[in-house]
Amino acid sequence: MTIGFEISATDGKARRGRMSLAHGVVDTPAFMPVGTAATVKAMRPESVAETGAQILLGNTYHLMLRPGAERIAELGGLHRFMNWDKPILTDSGGYQVYSLAGRRKLDADGVTFQSHIDGSRHRLTPERSIEIQHLLGADITMAFDECTPFPATHDQAAGSMRLSMRWAGRSRAAFADRDGHALFGIQQGSTFEDLRAESAEALRGIGFDGYAIGGLAVGEGQEMMFGVLNYAADQLPADRPRYLMGVGKPSDLLGAVMRGVDMFDCVLPTRSGRTAQAFTRRGTVNMRNARHGADSRPLDADCACPACTGYSRAYLHHLIRSDEILGAMLLTGHNVWYYQDLMAGMRAAIEARGLEAFAATFHETQALGDIEPL
Amino acid sequence: MTIGFEISATDGKARRGRMSLAHGVVDTPAFMPVGTAATVKAMRPESVAETGAQILLGNTYHLMLRPGAERIAELGGLHRFMNWDKPILTDSGGYQVYSLAGRRKLDADGVTFQSHIDGSRHRLTPERSIEIQHLLGADITMAFDECTPFPATHDQAAGSMRLSMRWAGRSRAAFADRDGHALFGIQQGSTFEDLRAESAEALRGIGFDGYAIGGLAVGEGQEMMFGVLNYAADQLPADRPRYLMGVGKPSDLLGAVMRGVDMFDCVLPTRSGRTAQAFTRRGTVNMRNARHGADSRPLDADCACPACTGYSRAYLHHLIRSDEILGAMLLTGHNVWYYQDLMAGMRAAIEARGLEAFAATFHETQALGDIEPL
Repeated sequence: MTIGFEISATDGKARRGRMSLAHGVVDTPAFMPVGTAATVKAMRPESVAETGAQILLGNTYHLMLRPGAERIAELGGLHRFMNWDKPILTDSGGYQVYSLAGRRKLDADGVTFQSHIDGSRHRLTPERSIEIQHLLGADITMAFDECTPFPATHDQAAGSMRLSMRWAGRSRAAFADRDGHALFGIQQGSTFEDLRAESAEALRGIGFDGYAIGGLAVGEGQEMMFGVLNYAADQLPADRPRYLMGVGKPSDLLGAVMRGVDMFDCVLPTRSGRTAQAFTRRGTVNMRNARHGADSRPLDADCACPACTGYSRAYLHHLIRSDEILGAMLLTGHNVWYYQDLMAGMRAAIEARGLEAFAATFHETQALGDIEPL
Repeated sequence: MTIGFEISATDGKARRGRMSLAHGVVDTPAFMPVGTAATVKAMRPESVAETGAQILLGNTYHLMLRPGAERIAELGGLHRFMNWDKPILTDSGGYQVYSLAGRRKLDADGVTFQSHIDGSRHRLTPERSIEIQHLLGADITMAFDECTPFPATHDQAAGSMRLSMRWAGRSRAAFADRDGHALFGIQQGSTFEDLRAESAEALRGIGFDGYAIGGLAVGEGQEMMFGVLNYAADQLPADRPRYLMGVGKPSDLLGAVMRGVDMFDCVLPTRSGRTAQAFTRRGTVNMRNARHGADSRPLDADCACPACTGYSRAYLHHLIRSDEILGAMLLTGHNVWYYQDLMAGMRAAIEARGLEAFAATFHETQALGDIEPL
């Protein structure tokens, strides 16, 4: 294996790990903020690092269209381009293209699609996806797959999964092993335990540095997602990092960690920061709500982020009402900070074998919501 | 006088000064970034301070409408509200209301106007303007005046100026003297030397801590503005700070400093930062231009700001093309940084009695523009 992954503690199925990559170490369970277009929206990379984030996600689909993977390579790679010297995971582009309903055409070799920016035609294959991720300089490269639509019949899910497994083999063949650089395979199989097992077996056969769980968080709901995770995580190699793609809400992260997942990414904290939604220790809070207008308290008294240490809820509310960019900057920063604090809390709880108690407190305080009196 | 102002060096008419205010010292000549709605748009206040800015401008008009001056006072004043512990100058609201063509009605006592936000009716008088600026906690309060439209006949300009002088007296009477807190009068008189002299005489008679030059940068052009400044600055007390309101481009600042002006404010660096326009040592640069797309050089190699030290022109161009908030953040930060560097350069040149040479180099390099080869 070309990257290190050491598990130092476990609590139930939850694991406390440490992944060693070309650009640094990632403590797991880890949440990766999303830097779609070579920027974590509304944040300077120094501010992202201050939250405790040790790894970002970059999107192959967006970067291949603008400014182009070859362009980024000429400029020294994605790390240098976006001024982030810690690890980066790039997705394969598969999921983003899957989201282009009506503007993509799948064949056995790959997928042809139209750019959402200018309608131009492009093509992704396993080989081209891996090439792009090389050009970007990813620490972790993802295999190119098809995200199985939800819901799917057993037949549909099997066909889609087996296509992804063939593409996983081609991704592996196209990937150039280098120290500190990882290739992750992606398990598919929708909500069918036998297909998930078949997919895991196929991926093990090919051999990857880490294993992602794909095809979830696509509308099936938390209960069904946890139902799949109850077996899916166990099907993947115990000594390698497990990554649940595109997840999720704070309670999703906690539930998935308790089922053996080590890594996550999601646009929720950053996107919510641009729509006045704040994640806090008392649950989600809509900062556009007039109730905050005269409130001199910090957004979250237990948070050390710039938004919570420098400003009142009244000020954050004012920024949002005034459509000020600083509102998006501060709330995004807070949300990413909160997510990193949540992951750090889980890591400490696993080390202390106290994750059940941590979860109980989490669910109790999250239910407080936005309604405590002034 | 309730604030200190010491001039330590002069070079021609230019002055190197130091103003002592309740929240700190301001080295002059000084440029004040504009924080209209209690935020310098797209910048955290820590970042504003890092540029070298020692004082901000806040807008009475915007803040009285949203979130309201009494609200800000309840929350501890504007400094605390926006997390800026250095000096703040507030304008009187007069100019902003003047800009509300068709939605304001002037009478001898004040002005009634409709909010641009919700159409609600409001009123400003000298007494209410001063009260609002007290509530905000300004270090420097501006007298309430009418900005004389341009062009104006001698009669129109005289009538408008004399109204402003009556209001200046009422502003003075309404202002509560406190150590470190200043009240500035505003000279009017359009482009008429005799009226500028009459206005200056009226203001001197009332007595202020500093003197602003109003009614310029309203469409008269740089040549005519400099023509007025040739005499207007001299008409104001030599031992008190002189503030040219709403100015301007880098060459405006330099020309005005050479005519004896000490303070400036303008939205240009911040607004331009949101429209891809960068101010540099080689002139203004449009970062949206495709020529920057593959350019690995920094925006301005002699600039120490985060945008210039951390990123390529290609990256900044990419952010702008992608409508990323970080583009506005980095370019705004750069522009404010450049303006502060320019003022620091002028201050050093005055101390060294080298402002003429500084100006010659400035004009030479500004003409380079955006066209130097890769």
